[in-house]
Amino acid sequence: MKDVVIGIDIGGTFTKFGIIDIKGNCIGENYTSTDIYNDFDSYLENLQHEIANTVATIRGPIKICSVGIGAPNGNYYKGTIENAPNLNWKGIVPFVDKFRLYYPGLPIVLTNDANAAALGEMIYGGAKGMKDFIVITLGTGLGSGIVVNGNLVYGHDGFAGELGHVNVKQNGRECGCGKRGCLETYVSATGIKRTVFKLMVERITPSELRNYNYEELTAKMISEAAANGDPIAREAFEITGRILGIKLADAVACTSPEAIFLFGGLANAGDLLLKPARKYFEENLFPVFRGKVQILISRLQESNAAVMGASALAWKELQK
Amino acid sequence: MKDVVIGIDIGGTFTKFGIIDIKGNCIGENYTSTDIYNDFDSYLENLQHEIANTVATIRGPIKICSVGIGAPNGNYYKGTIENAPNLNWKGIVPFVDKFRLYYPGLPIVLTNDANAAALGEMIYGGAKGMKDFIVITLGTGLGSGIVVNGNLVYGHDGFAGELGHVNVKQNGRECGCGKRGCLETYVSATGIKRTVFKLMVERITPSELRNYNYEELTAKMISEAAANGDPIAREAFEITGRILGIKLADAVACTSPEAIFLFGGLANAGDLLLKPARKYFEENLFPVFRGKVQILISRLQESNAAVMGASALAWKELQK
Repeated sequence: MKDVVIGIDIGGTFTKFGIIDIKGNCIGENYTSTDIYNDFDSYLENLQHEIANTVATIRGPIKICSVGIGAPNGNYYKGTIENAPNLNWKGIVPFVDKFRLYYPGLPIVLTNDANAAALGEMIYGGAKGMKDFIVITLGTGLGSGIVVNGNLVYGHDGFAGELGHVNVKQNGRECGCGKRGCLETYVSATGIKRTVFKLMVERITPSELRNYNYEELTAKMISEAAANGDPIAREAFEITGRILGIKLADAVACTSPEAIFLFGGLANAGDLLLKPARKYFEENLFPVFRGKVQILISRLQESNAAVMGASALAWKELQK
Repeated sequence: MKDVVIGIDIGGTFTKFGIIDIKGNCIGENYTSTDIYNDFDSYLENLQHEIANTVATIRGPIKICSVGIGAPNGNYYKGTIENAPNLNWKGIVPFVDKFRLYYPGLPIVLTNDANAAALGEMIYGGAKGMKDFIVITLGTGLGSGIVVNGNLVYGHDGFAGELGHVNVKQNGRECGCGKRGCLETYVSATGIKRTVFKLMVERITPSELRNYNYEELTAKMISEAAANGDPIAREAFEITGRILGIKLADAVACTSPEAIFLFGGLANAGDLLLKPARKYFEENLFPVFRGKVQILISRLQESNAAVMGASALAWKELQK
């Protein structure tokens, strides 16, 4: 009998899930739609149905020990998804309480996607054996999961780790959260695009990026242009890396991690982002921390990292 | 037989100590000089001698269970004081290892003064029963102790909680740490004085503070002037509170505390500092945290808070 957990990653469009063993082997996986269900109960019923179908295809006896869920605005303490802007379900959704009906007696835990990524890094990735580290997820926005002394920091309300919303500039860029000048308006796929458009205004340098409109331009195109030597794209990476480095130095002043892992789209740009990030990071570190804290690329595979992270949450809960 | 601990607060000029019971009653206290000893061993011998003298005056039987020490640049993991700028002993001083010779078999723990203040707040002060909170000490500089899930955050190297050195402004004011633009160059007794001098340059408003030179002017004089309606002093508090509020909002995005306690000189200015701090704090909080996090004045008595904090560290260690 093989012990496994179910990891579930809830995104705006798809919900992905996997059946994962303690070594991080995924022995079954699939996905279902998130957004065709306006009714939460129908969504949940279908999700459970799809999971059961996948479990039925697995060879050999397994024992499902726990369920871990990564979801935007997921609250670990309450097991709720609260006012998630990209999900159809409005208000506070009691996900864990409802899901428990399908898995009575099983530990079911939920947190936000970046926290799940941090646990994935700890259990399967580059943070194995580390007790103090931070994971930064660079997607459309910027998420973060902070681990202190071997445990995720949830804070008093379950919502700790929102480094995407620390302030870079008073009265800076408008953020989806309603504030202005948040880190994720500068450092994220959207952030670097905004920086490219700003540079197109300020510079007279020719750039292939001037041929794309705002809706067309992607962070991947900016990475490719930078790799080809495009000066606007390169400057955008320099600026993005600088802001990231400065703000990560501030985060170190809080919790003194031994490493910071970057995950997701922008992180794949490698040295384009890492070089300026590391330079300004070191310069801005409080001297006692200099030379001690690494900025690393996540070792999780992007394709299934969120599901792996959710499963790591489930395993972590069982260790308690 | 009454269980007690020894709390020791090492300052640049004096070392204060107290014999404290679990309720926070100080049943014996005294102080000795820190800076007349160039030789660390002589200092330690004298300190132990003074403690023994004080213990001898206590009526009734006591049992010393542990020793807690608060010291600048104190490293919890190693029990060392590392390159403390205001102490005579240079380099890395193995305080705990040497002190253990006098108290064999007893748990002896050391951390920095702000961390000790945070534990004091938790065990004897306003943070009783809280699991997630931050203490900010406002003295010559700005120190901080961060508590997550009931435990101090020490970080991977024992130096976490340096909020005084997060960046307010790139290429901003020079800081004693060697960086520029650190929070404590704006928000501290020295910081507000620097702001007053800047305002005297920028404004033509008359102010009684224009009659003092830089060495003379103190934060207390600025508080008194502000209380009397002096416009430069009032604006300096407004600016100081604003910067504090903005940066505390960023700290909440990291660890989501339920309260932030302000301790020390500047905190005594009350609403002069608290009003702008709370206003800009709320405005800059990530929306999910709004209305949830209190900024409070410490409930520890300033006169012996550092010794009480050190004793709280000792009690906390015994609970482990």
